[in-house]
Amino acid sequence: MSNEELEQLRASLDDKNMEILKLINERAEIVQKIGGVKSKSGTKRFDPVRERKMLDLIAEENEGPFKTSTLQHLFKQIFKASLELMGEDEQKALLV
Amino acid sequence: MSNEELEQLRASLDDKNMEILKLINERAEIVQKIGGVKSKSGTKRFDPVRERKMLDLIAEENEGPFKTSTLQHLFKQIFKASLELMGEDEQKALLV
Repeated sequence: MSNEELEQLRASLDDKNMEILKLINERAEIVQKIGGVKSKSGTKRFDPVRERKMLDLIAEENEGPFKTSTLQHLFKQIFKASLELMGEDEQKALLV
Repeated sequence: MSNEELEQLRASLDDKNMEILKLINERAEIVQKIGGVKSKSGTKRFDPVRERKMLDLIAEENEGPFKTSTLQHLFKQIFKASLELMGEDEQKALLV
């Protein structure tokens, strides 16, 4: 019984992982578009004020169970990966 | 015009962040339930085989733009935070 329960919970976890995967990639597509707009206008990619605002919004909206500090740490990793992705796009553009 | 476009993209990014936040917390709730089942059966919380399977599934399902290695790195951070959360729950249980 407990094993069956575990298998069901694991299946839900896999579904949740796939939803998160999809959303993180969709988020990356938006970041790429922002990178495109910024490179046209010559604006710097990294904007600490904007990043702070996103982290504040996470603090406001967090209903747990994760602590806000944990979530902000996870999102900072996502932000960092996104900046790296924008950097790669720019390098590719330079090679064309 | 470009500024307006940027504002719209940022609003989409905020929406996406909030969706990811919600899913990561929902995922944590499932992990807590798994922790509960495991502690009843005396099974160890950390299961490297299961973690490997989840990472493989991410590799299979990834459609980009993020590279699989980047996503696997992000998910490992989520897994780590989840294990820490299960540890906190256990400590709380010990205090009751």
